[in-house]
Amino acid sequence: MLTNINVAMIGGDARQIEIMRILSELDAVVRLYGFDQLQQQFSGVSKHDLEPTAFTDVDAIILPAVGADSEGNVVSIYTSHSLILSREHIQMLPKHAVVYTGLAQPYLKKLCSNEDIKLVELFDRDDVAIFNSIPTAEGAIMLAIQHTDFTIHSSHCMVLGMGRTGLTLARVLQALGAQVTIGVNKTEQYARAFEMGFKPFYTVDLASEVDEVDLIFNTIPTMIITAQVIAHISNQAVIIDLASKPGGTDFRFAEKRGVRALLTPGLPGIVAPKTAGQIIARALSQLILEEARKRGNEEWIGRQKQ
Amino acid sequence: MLTNINVAMIGGDARQIEIMRILSELDAVVRLYGFDQLQQQFSGVSKHDLEPTAFTDVDAIILPAVGADSEGNVVSIYTSHSLILSREHIQMLPKHAVVYTGLAQPYLKKLCSNEDIKLVELFDRDDVAIFNSIPTAEGAIMLAIQHTDFTIHSSHCMVLGMGRTGLTLARVLQALGAQVTIGVNKTEQYARAFEMGFKPFYTVDLASEVDEVDLIFNTIPTMIITAQVIAHISNQAVIIDLASKPGGTDFRFAEKRGVRALLTPGLPGIVAPKTAGQIIARALSQLILEEARKRGNEEWIGRQKQ
Repeated sequence: MLTNINVAMIGGDARQIEIMRILSELDAVVRLYGFDQLQQQFSGVSKHDLEPTAFTDVDAIILPAVGADSEGNVVSIYTSHSLILSREHIQMLPKHAVVYTGLAQPYLKKLCSNEDIKLVELFDRDDVAIFNSIPTAEGAIMLAIQHTDFTIHSSHCMVLGMGRTGLTLARVLQALGAQVTIGVNKTEQYARAFEMGFKPFYTVDLASEVDEVDLIFNTIPTMIITAQVIAHISNQAVIIDLASKPGGTDFRFAEKRGVRALLTPGLPGIVAPKTAGQIIARALSQLILEEARKRGNEEWIGRQKQ
Repeated sequence: MLTNINVAMIGGDARQIEIMRILSELDAVVRLYGFDQLQQQFSGVSKHDLEPTAFTDVDAIILPAVGADSEGNVVSIYTSHSLILSREHIQMLPKHAVVYTGLAQPYLKKLCSNEDIKLVELFDRDDVAIFNSIPTAEGAIMLAIQHTDFTIHSSHCMVLGMGRTGLTLARVLQALGAQVTIGVNKTEQYARAFEMGFKPFYTVDLASEVDEVDLIFNTIPTMIITAQVIAHISNQAVIIDLASKPGGTDFRFAEKRGVRALLTPGLPGIVAPKTAGQIIARALSQLILEEARKRGNEEWIGRQKQ
């Protein structure tokens, strides 16, 4: 339980609803900023204006998946007002407070490090990334079905990268009956891919592997599907790039050659906001609880020393 | 090979392109009716007007998946003119000619039986129905991902019917990580479903099985998801009805209760016209070849008797 824990939730999208529902069930006190158009109501959850003075007793700040931009703007689909997270808000926080977001940009990182406030990037955690790979894979499959005139079953699918998302996606495509080729860069990944019945290859050989491929799914966040690679791809093929912006595809050259290429980061929040919210809420509530226990222990130790 | 076989293809959609491509590769002579807006060209394939006199040397007529309506209208997405298949066309056919369609309506059945012309309903064949279940299942999965805010993974999915489509769909949902309940009506289906790791139940007990279900996929073409059943379904659940029109759901009552229900017949032609065309073309070319061989044998026997 998170009784007596004060949480400030600033902005976000449909995922935030699941997060506030679960924090409310765990008895946290949740203050919402940027949710004036939200209809739902939860016990222990109330709406406020974003005044720095209200932050003096906050234990945890929850920002949206993309955090704050380079001017401190926080996006919320539940308000038409602008939400700006400034130095004053972070300065007001007690020293033990923690700021949670999906992935942080430099502005937010600097804000927190300047004030010596702990910042946690949830999407950087292996557990969250693996759980998130489930809605990501389903979104990728939905897009593949939408954007082709053939079935995934019997098609030649290529997955680039065998990390947290690549492995999930390759398994799911195989389960749907596709022939799955997987681009890896480590010998142990090559061996595991072989064991699982995929056809592995090393990504350095990519250009010579793509000529018979119907669908290419990229999970590698560096320029990998270069013009040289695209020159070998059939113009009937479709590239679905799941890597973080700007992706790993030369989109300009793909368009020039008539190869369809989609950049699709952030699929969990789009195709399954409820599940994606539950994934974040589960990790968040665990982390907030750990912080509270740690603080309780420190306070107990402090009292013993007096 | 289908050398010297004359095929008349009347109307259709994107699936017909794959069919004419494959028949052309097999060296058939293909005459197109209702394709004046078609851009592609294939060897041995030519465009004509729908004159009955042109049908005297036709070995096979290929109609679209839905055949002709009760006035003989044949739908084509490649023409703005109307296409009407009349008694005169069928009367002109040689006695050995065969008419192929997906599923025939009474008008077409009567037309052929009156003139003693063989009519083949391809979608009625087990092989075609099983092959078609692949794009149907992929289309159902696409719709499920689009119309829910949760992942198929970990969700409670129910499949009604364990026939040619139901079995494919249940397997694919299970492969995506769903918990799959399947409604059957035969003891051997119950046993097979259990062996495959599904949770089987008899459809007579449907009303008492639906309360915790997130997604219901129906493949049974009779009224099965009745008002009484819908009364037990969560209004967060989504019904995807894959049975032929008018489906097996009380759509009026579902709407009244706020339960989302989609009627989605004909998914193969929508989500994977190329694959769906290949499925039809494979069955068609095999059947046309069998007819030609049979006729060759009969002619040979005829010559021996003279």
